[in-house]
Amino acid sequence: MSHAGLTRALKAWSTDPAELARVSVDRSGTVPDGLPDLVVFARDVDDVRRTVSYAAARGVPVVPRGAGSGVAGGAVAGAGAIVLDLSGLDRIAEIRPDDAIAVVEPGVVTADLDAAAAAHGLRYAPDPASAAFSTIGGNIATNAGGLRCVKYGVTRDAVLAVDAVLGDGTLVRTGRRTVKGVTGYDLTGLLVGSEGTLGVIVGATLRLSPLPAATATAGAFFATAEDAVAAVTALQRRGLRPSTAELLDRATLVAIDQAQGGDLHTRGQVFLLLQTDGHGAEAELAEAERVLRPLATSVETTTDPVVADRLVATRRAALPAVERHGRVLIEDIAVPRSQIAGTVAAVERIAASTGVRIFVFAHVGDGNLHPIVLAGSAPPEQVDLAVAAVFEHALSVGGTLTGEHGVGTLKRPWLAAELGDPVLDLHRRIKAVFDPAGILNPGKAI
Amino acid sequence: MSHAGLTRALKAWSTDPAELARVSVDRSGTVPDGLPDLVVFARDVDDVRRTVSYAAARGVPVVPRGAGSGVAGGAVAGAGAIVLDLSGLDRIAEIRPDDAIAVVEPGVVTADLDAAAAAHGLRYAPDPASAAFSTIGGNIATNAGGLRCVKYGVTRDAVLAVDAVLGDGTLVRTGRRTVKGVTGYDLTGLLVGSEGTLGVIVGATLRLSPLPAATATAGAFFATAEDAVAAVTALQRRGLRPSTAELLDRATLVAIDQAQGGDLHTRGQVFLLLQTDGHGAEAELAEAERVLRPLATSVETTTDPVVADRLVATRRAALPAVERHGRVLIEDIAVPRSQIAGTVAAVERIAASTGVRIFVFAHVGDGNLHPIVLAGSAPPEQVDLAVAAVFEHALSVGGTLTGEHGVGTLKRPWLAAELGDPVLDLHRRIKAVFDPAGILNPGKAI
Repeated sequence: MSHAGLTRALKAWSTDPAELARVSVDRSGTVPDGLPDLVVFARDVDDVRRTVSYAAARGVPVVPRGAGSGVAGGAVAGAGAIVLDLSGLDRIAEIRPDDAIAVVEPGVVTADLDAAAAAHGLRYAPDPASAAFSTIGGNIATNAGGLRCVKYGVTRDAVLAVDAVLGDGTLVRTGRRTVKGVTGYDLTGLLVGSEGTLGVIVGATLRLSPLPAATATAGAFFATAEDAVAAVTALQRRGLRPSTAELLDRATLVAIDQAQGGDLHTRGQVFLLLQTDGHGAEAELAEAERVLRPLATSVETTTDPVVADRLVATRRAALPAVERHGRVLIEDIAVPRSQIAGTVAAVERIAASTGVRIFVFAHVGDGNLHPIVLAGSAPPEQVDLAVAAVFEHALSVGGTLTGEHGVGTLKRPWLAAELGDPVLDLHRRIKAVFDPAGILNPGKAI
Repeated sequence: MSHAGLTRALKAWSTDPAELARVSVDRSGTVPDGLPDLVVFARDVDDVRRTVSYAAARGVPVVPRGAGSGVAGGAVAGAGAIVLDLSGLDRIAEIRPDDAIAVVEPGVVTADLDAAAAAHGLRYAPDPASAAFSTIGGNIATNAGGLRCVKYGVTRDAVLAVDAVLGDGTLVRTGRRTVKGVTGYDLTGLLVGSEGTLGVIVGATLRLSPLPAATATAGAFFATAEDAVAAVTALQRRGLRPSTAELLDRATLVAIDQAQGGDLHTRGQVFLLLQTDGHGAEAELAEAERVLRPLATSVETTTDPVVADRLVATRRAALPAVERHGRVLIEDIAVPRSQIAGTVAAVERIAASTGVRIFVFAHVGDGNLHPIVLAGSAPPEQVDLAVAAVFEHALSVGGTLTGEHGVGTLKRPWLAAELGDPVLDLHRRIKAVFDPAGILNPGKAI
């Protein structure tokens, strides 16, 4: 379909098949059902409003897109869609150090905001693994998490206000510049994590936090996941608040060693990376160490940034090391804290019984596990079976399908199992309020 | 109107005028336009569903009610309404220490939950001043704040899941038992703070946190509010995270001295109560003291619980001391951090120019100010003028009408000024999704 009526009024757009192919996919591996009609490179909010209004009048699907770094299929665009690329709206409009807020456009890369805040002694706390290339708009759309969330909260906790273009082209501003505020419904929270289905995020007011005065780091090995989880639970129960608590399972340690020629997997079955920060970082880590020692096979602590970087690098090496073995499905379940160890064991059983290779990383401090499924390690039906079993386990222990990546297209078949029909029905009716024509990222999230 | 068709099926209810009068008001001073028809004392969720379904079929307003401790008029019930009293649903169903969650009914008194959690070394962090008598359901309805929010977040941050009866009697469960989770829209967040207009909260899963290992306390006096606010801002910018940061202005100090025969008002113009907690509490307070010293006229620090209690008691004495002078309107604006000192000054100017006595307490760490307006201190039209001027000032500096108390009936006239018409229209359409018959707490919040 030609969209000359729209493109006439735009500053930048393309129908070049190579460009369309590039913007039709994200990092989920989901293959779209054909090329979209058009990609609009938004240069200002008017471009967004114009595109959405045009599409609403004609019932054309609009797929908003930041960096395309999503892993759940939320930005995948198929035949007949208009891709609305917001990566060009990348201005940091304001940083107000005294208010500890930033006002940004959606295409700002997360790490760039963090760096800009650092110039004022501040930081943007949410740190998804994709921070170096994902955008604030995409982080908001998925309510992205990250390593520091265990202490500093997820994206939702950092978003004070959003500007959004609704499905009829209306521009609304929700929220405020204050830390607290209860006037009206929490529409900001509703838009965060709505994966582009309720509105297109065109601006945001974000909370910044001070750079920590100090950071202390520990790396520990354990004989079992139970021991590692018991250690984390014990230190949390003592009121210690790690800023990072990451677990890698044995399969992941083996993969890292294969990639780097190291001996991690000989030192324990499970690796735990722990960090504390703030004025009491060192004292807090010393207290944490007292909790870890009796449960761990080895513990290394440091305040030396070089040693700390080496320990953190182990965690960072995990996904690339696994990806060397082929295409991966990055799952993202979260479970109550008491169910973490049992869930790691369940994933191992599922891997063994289906013959599918699965690696587990976990933001263990908040019960968010990433079972990384090696797609080519078994026949597709076995892989499907394994993924289904992982989801089923998570739901059976009171967990959720997705802790921080979003539902996208990949997890939609499981949505009703988690939410139940009455709640899913509420979702559809809320969607109709924000997007009466049903054009905003249809077929995603809900 | 007789509601025999409903009461036949109920376990407990009353049409006694004295009972109806009692349940028709809250602590806002708002006078209802007559007695409600009926009060239903819910004994289980079925009573709630039955009442709401009955009312929906007949277009009868339902006013949900906990302890009636609201200060914005959210629980005021007028002629023709059914009051749905949830205070009898007061069971703590579960406390799971390893998961750090509690599952409760809405009528549980906030302090009772906190006490029950303490038996497991945990606490319920949100601590509204009303905690000794307000209920969790009411706290959720208003997204209540409190003194500890500056470090531990507001009610919304502690609510993982809610059970709610929607306006057609449907029971839904939103959220989950996990700390993180992004499946579907954030309906939990939407219900929190909706002041009974979207659903009746009949259950909640709440996040608990460890009791702090230690607490350290400082009381400081300053020559000006500017100095006190500058001190708090400076320590926050250094990454110090006070668990309490409360400011009392000179008028309040005078009122406390009048009540208690003390000399607080001779020691400075402004009092700041500061607490730090956790493993590094003492070190953190020492660091804070270094920031306070050059700006304060005096600083007293302590880790002695008795001395700390005396300092905290000063803050606690504020409202009772002011209330000795007559009926008060408790305002609740919040402003960006850089605007706090200017707002205290603006309130003083407004008091002087209108002849209305206004006292200011502030949760200064998060910019939430309570200008306490002495209703009888000037003619009603002057009081209205003063309140209007306070709201106008808050909005003009990027602030909000209400930081933690809710809109209720009292702040509704100002709603459009803060939210704008397109956003207010969204509110009405969302309300229609949850409550098609428009019977849930009509005339409140939105």
